[in-house]
Amino acid sequence: MTSWALVYEEFVPEQEALREALCALGNGYFAARGAAPESEAGEIHYPGTYLAGGYNRLHTEISGRTVENEDLVNLPNWLPLSFRIRGGNWFNLHAVEILSYHQQLDLRQGVLSRTVRFRDHEGNQTRVSQRRLVHIRDFHLAALETVISAENWSGPLQVRSGLDGGVVNAGVERYQRLSNKHLQPLDAQAIGEDAVFLKVETSQSELGVALAARTRLYRRGARLNVQPRVIEKPDRVAQEFELELAEGEDVTIEKIVAMFSSRDHAISECGLAAKEAAADAGDFEELIESHVLVWDQLWRHFDLELEHAAGARENEAEMILRLHIFHLLQTASPAIKDLDTGIPARGLHGEAYRGHIFWDELFAFPILNLRMPEITRAVLMYRYRRLEAARAAAHAAGYRGAMYPWQSGSDGREESQTLHLNPRSGRWVPDNSRLQRHVNAAIAYNVWQYYQVTRDLEFLSAYGAEMILEIARFWASMVSFNPELDRYEIRGVMGPDEYHDAYPDAEEPGLDNNAYTNVMAAWVLCRALELPEVLAKERWRELRESIELRDDELQHWDEVSRKMRIAFHEDGIISQFEGYHELQELDWAAYREKYDDIQRLDRILEAEGDTPNRYRASKQADVLMLFYLFSSEELGELFERLGYPFHYDTIPKNIEYYIRRTSHGSTLSRVVHSWVLARSDRAASWRLFTQALQSDVGDIQGGTTAEGIHVGAMAGTVDILQRGHMGIETRRDLLWLNPSLPEELACIEMHIRFRGHSLTLIATKKRLTLRAGPSKAEPVRIGVREQTLTVAAGDTCEVEL
Amino acid sequence: MTSWALVYEEFVPEQEALREALCALGNGYFAARGAAPESEAGEIHYPGTYLAGGYNRLHTEISGRTVENEDLVNLPNWLPLSFRIRGGNWFNLHAVEILSYHQQLDLRQGVLSRTVRFRDHEGNQTRVSQRRLVHIRDFHLAALETVISAENWSGPLQVRSGLDGGVVNAGVERYQRLSNKHLQPLDAQAIGEDAVFLKVETSQSELGVALAARTRLYRRGARLNVQPRVIEKPDRVAQEFELELAEGEDVTIEKIVAMFSSRDHAISECGLAAKEAAADAGDFEELIESHVLVWDQLWRHFDLELEHAAGARENEAEMILRLHIFHLLQTASPAIKDLDTGIPARGLHGEAYRGHIFWDELFAFPILNLRMPEITRAVLMYRYRRLEAARAAAHAAGYRGAMYPWQSGSDGREESQTLHLNPRSGRWVPDNSRLQRHVNAAIAYNVWQYYQVTRDLEFLSAYGAEMILEIARFWASMVSFNPELDRYEIRGVMGPDEYHDAYPDAEEPGLDNNAYTNVMAAWVLCRALELPEVLAKERWRELRESIELRDDELQHWDEVSRKMRIAFHEDGIISQFEGYHELQELDWAAYREKYDDIQRLDRILEAEGDTPNRYRASKQADVLMLFYLFSSEELGELFERLGYPFHYDTIPKNIEYYIRRTSHGSTLSRVVHSWVLARSDRAASWRLFTQALQSDVGDIQGGTTAEGIHVGAMAGTVDILQRGHMGIETRRDLLWLNPSLPEELACIEMHIRFRGHSLTLIATKKRLTLRAGPSKAEPVRIGVREQTLTVAAGDTCEVEL
Repeated sequence: MTSWALVYEEFVPEQEALREALCALGNGYFAARGAAPESEAGEIHYPGTYLAGGYNRLHTEISGRTVENEDLVNLPNWLPLSFRIRGGNWFNLHAVEILSYHQQLDLRQGVLSRTVRFRDHEGNQTRVSQRRLVHIRDFHLAALETVISAENWSGPLQVRSGLDGGVVNAGVERYQRLSNKHLQPLDAQAIGEDAVFLKVETSQSELGVALAARTRLYRRGARLNVQPRVIEKPDRVAQEFELELAEGEDVTIEKIVAMFSSRDHAISECGLAAKEAAADAGDFEELIESHVLVWDQLWRHFDLELEHAAGARENEAEMILRLHIFHLLQTASPAIKDLDTGIPARGLHGEAYRGHIFWDELFAFPILNLRMPEITRAVLMYRYRRLEAARAAAHAAGYRGAMYPWQSGSDGREESQTLHLNPRSGRWVPDNSRLQRHVNAAIAYNVWQYYQVTRDLEFLSAYGAEMILEIARFWASMVSFNPELDRYEIRGVMGPDEYHDAYPDAEEPGLDNNAYTNVMAAWVLCRALELPEVLAKERWRELRESIELRDDELQHWDEVSRKMRIAFHEDGIISQFEGYHELQELDWAAYREKYDDIQRLDRILEAEGDTPNRYRASKQADVLMLFYLFSSEELGELFERLGYPFHYDTIPKNIEYYIRRTSHGSTLSRVVHSWVLARSDRAASWRLFTQALQSDVGDIQGGTTAEGIHVGAMAGTVDILQRGHMGIETRRDLLWLNPSLPEELACIEMHIRFRGHSLTLIATKKRLTLRAGPSKAEPVRIGVREQTLTVAAGDTCEVEL
Repeated sequence: MTSWALVYEEFVPEQEALREALCALGNGYFAARGAAPESEAGEIHYPGTYLAGGYNRLHTEISGRTVENEDLVNLPNWLPLSFRIRGGNWFNLHAVEILSYHQQLDLRQGVLSRTVRFRDHEGNQTRVSQRRLVHIRDFHLAALETVISAENWSGPLQVRSGLDGGVVNAGVERYQRLSNKHLQPLDAQAIGEDAVFLKVETSQSELGVALAARTRLYRRGARLNVQPRVIEKPDRVAQEFELELAEGEDVTIEKIVAMFSSRDHAISECGLAAKEAAADAGDFEELIESHVLVWDQLWRHFDLELEHAAGARENEAEMILRLHIFHLLQTASPAIKDLDTGIPARGLHGEAYRGHIFWDELFAFPILNLRMPEITRAVLMYRYRRLEAARAAAHAAGYRGAMYPWQSGSDGREESQTLHLNPRSGRWVPDNSRLQRHVNAAIAYNVWQYYQVTRDLEFLSAYGAEMILEIARFWASMVSFNPELDRYEIRGVMGPDEYHDAYPDAEEPGLDNNAYTNVMAAWVLCRALELPEVLAKERWRELRESIELRDDELQHWDEVSRKMRIAFHEDGIISQFEGYHELQELDWAAYREKYDDIQRLDRILEAEGDTPNRYRASKQADVLMLFYLFSSEELGELFERLGYPFHYDTIPKNIEYYIRRTSHGSTLSRVVHSWVLARSDRAASWRLFTQALQSDVGDIQGGTTAEGIHVGAMAGTVDILQRGHMGIETRRDLLWLNPSLPEELACIEMHIRFRGHSLTLIATKKRLTLRAGPSKAEPVRIGVREQTLTVAAGDTCEVEL
């Protein structure tokens, strides 16, 4: 069970927030958090639920450093359930003597359970067991089952179960000076005998949110008929039940909660929908049964199994990888297919980054594409719906096409902050991260990869192609021609490396010819130019008419795609940006000595009155991202088209150069570095991989996990096994497999879907076994290293490596 | 131009409502009506816009015969634009002398224009020209351009442009006693210099609706800088501009309106979205240009051309067919692809049936499937989102599976009225139409047909199959076994023929073994049993797990699908229902003599204290629907499986029998009858076809068109040409073509999409020409009468008929 469960056997108050984030249950809509039974109403420690991913909009005005933000709203708490024994205090886990403690997140079943035995000041010994779930299919429902056993006492037990709309966003310490109250109470009342109802509205965006909670008490399987007392406040409501418990007896309290928002489909008014759903919902056992069934089905697609090499130290890798898949699926589950939602950088498990959408889907899609591409499609639709906003942004900035923002929310406009706080110096520093225009290339890349895996021409025709074309047009409008070099340049941007946002002492932010950006832009232009070959002629005509795409524009794209500038310095080293080599080398050893942890070197330097802009030092892989996204074959072709050299040693030389100049200030950085080293330096790669695995479980950035898990890095670790070690690549209509296991692993097994086939892949160091499940799909061609196989449904193929 | 325009050259007050419905502009979201310039605010004759198709929910409680209904809400009027000349009265078309009048709905461009020259009491002669559009792609925008020319006067002109939220639902006379005020005003104010803003909320469902209107004045192409006076009331707001006009001069008033609802995707708050969209929108010329482009693209797919036979009387058929396609596309355009909306029986052009969803999509989908199946998919998703409500309805009624309601709205529950008013007798009569369970078969049929045309296995796997299975399960749970007959029976339902809802003198409503229902149910069971062959094995397993479908249940389905009862009477006549032949024959001649129009024979008989339940008289085709939905080959196979005879003359005999017993009280009836006669009695078929064409243009039901066009009948007339005369059928993986032109036509040309091919079909009486456009699709097999062709992209084939 251990590899399927995250287990804690001790209650450690200091780690509550971290464990809370790691054990969070949610499904992309109704994200539930919480590790401990709730304490007294009014001091709710575990705020409960979020609605994020672009439901609401940021007020970007920063006046007096107060930022209104509604992109992530801490929604009414569905968890409040407390009790008191024999007229004593309401239960507080921090104020009792804990006799034993067991907390377990069951990844296979998606159920969080906890058992606490405790003794209170009066010597009463009590056992409390809880199980909770947020239903992965019936995503409007959540359930909490609590069993309270009187171990050594008899007497009255009072149980209070309610809903709380008085919550605030207080999960990130450095946001404390931002406005944090986002809910206006509309209604809070008891409904019928066994339920309470709460309706609130978000302050600015006027999104209605309604919850109904049904609470029933059982003893020995029979329902107790206890009349509750109702407590109604403007923003909260609860029922209080009183019953007698005899020594050795227990009572089960079942709380079923339904949540609807005013944006939901197929409802009338959201309050009515919540009330009906809570009344009609099955009991805890019924809900858990259907919930577990769906998780079981999900794991059939998403699970992967690792076998460690003889002699290799067993580690928790398998369990952590499953935890990562689990969190990815909670953020982007099949339940979001019909919702207008993106993949927020921190999942739905914390308030950091305010629920904004960055580029993290780039790291999540490879996992989803090969297993449930319908989820990818839904998230790409989230982007498509914001194409008009991206067009408006490009227009406002003087460009053509579509310019997707670096951070976005509900309505797709730029939501990046213009200032950010350095907690080390206490200073608010200008934030130029919006200059990360490369997010646009990521979106085009994602569309293309989705199409490569699925051949979903309908999506490409109706939506995807338009995004690629408008992004291509944006890049083509952003370049300037340098006649001396006979090259096109992109000036004034930032790459993924956030340490560099300007030239030293420059007045304006931005850098020129960021290699990652320029190569990606050229690649996007190539894909756009390929579209007429892919789309039906009629659709191509319509698209061109609709976006007024002229022949001379296409010719210009072709030229730019062949003459984009990439700067080099030294022998074959791709300059991260123009002039990078003129920066100073950082004295890494000195800083490592002076500061324990230099992951956030930017904050250290700023606090010293310096800036990373002066140094050849990266927060995260920038040039190396290219080796992460493309195979050397594909990159080689692209460089050839651009007329730049690409030698057998281009990749290792650049890896070697940059890896020594990176502080890993981003959770994604270790993923990318582990990846790019996978074939050249397996030991270092494995070390970075195990560090990346610890990103959230070990909270290696010192407190960031409690503010929300890192969904991109989590997905990225799984992708290291999939695209990295299994060597899966979809290119030129073929599925390529090129396994290369690290020393520490004897075997990797995983399941993927490709063009209608269900494929099981089992790789050892010596052999690849490929099993195609039964299906009606046409045989597919699969490339394994240098050879090409034709695989039909039902086939099993073995290839010696 | 005539075949592309609906033109009226005379202002006829009595026909205003009819013309208004026929000239309505909308796009499935923002439906705009109106034929005349608005008169004085407060007496707005043309209420403007609707939100329908399930946005809101019916209050089904009928108490004192007051029905609250929010499934169709007359939304704030965006049209108010009036003027007065030289301080006189506000313009009123009914109070001036009309010198000339020209009204034209341009079907090709989707633009309604009108020019009126008039003389007022003071002798001022003025020319007013208007053009209006509701944007077919940017569906949040509408635009109205008004040019006012002073022909023989000089002096002040006042123009008032506003938004009105004080509208009520008053479009259907017999609903007058129902509650008709559904909007609560929230905000009405001027914004900036050139715009006004209105926000309202629907009373029960709390759907927010926001409109912003930008009004600008131009003279000789230059914008006039006129400061408006603002008129703000709680539920309306307007701007009043005053300017001087010299004799012979004109002024152009451009009004651009944006509308958003709180359910829209990719917005923050709907008011903010409306304000920004109105501010950012292009001018009238820009909007019309992009609007016309999209209509042009739509017509490339949807247009059909008719050539009349030499000697045949030219008629307006082509124009009316285009009008019908136009209305279909306004109700179900590509713009609805991302909305949660169905196809309301009356489109969005009137308040009759309260915007409810019936089975009309059955008639619309054949047109959409073969041209833009993505629209069909969106409407099928509307059904899928309400599958849970259909399951709950089945459960509540004691059945298994899913029971979709006869009428539904926002949340998918049954919304059929329980009483209806007979305007002839003034009596409220019990309404049992909810017993039309056959709507479920129509939904399964629609899913299957969509899949047949598109091979969209992803949709079938994720959504469609589950609907088919749950509907099959419903039918299997509804049957009862009759051991004497060794047959399964379905009791207590209604067929499509609404004249028959009970046996004469029966206490309970409902009929047994309605042939249409039973055959359809058996067909659905067959398709459900075919699914394991179609779906991937893994998906079939998951589906079975999810809906707990056991082997014995599948065996039961198989048995029911082979032993469903169909009653026959006389020689080969399929009884409309069990015991039909025991009813009396109606003295049709006597009733036709006594009453001019016996289309609504049910109302006539009820007013006489009688009931159609006593007679062999149908409101609309019931048994004959089977010949409409299935080819004789397919029906023959189904009868064979059921062990019933199906002879070469089964179809003609049944047609002959029932056609004499039908009053055509439904607009769909003529469509079906024209269809079934197409090959046996071409003259009668053509006569019925031309009558069906007149349904709305001629308002042949005497006033029902003004209450909303009949979208099913409109689509049905197009389908007569497509599936009927062109003989298009998709069956067993093949496209079949079997042209048979009526005498009156020399040639039909149309364009369809099939499995990635763009096919142009040109049929004359002697020859079928088939052109496959360029594409990357694989060659397809196409059956033409008895032969099978393989057609590749770029091919042109000719087949002698």
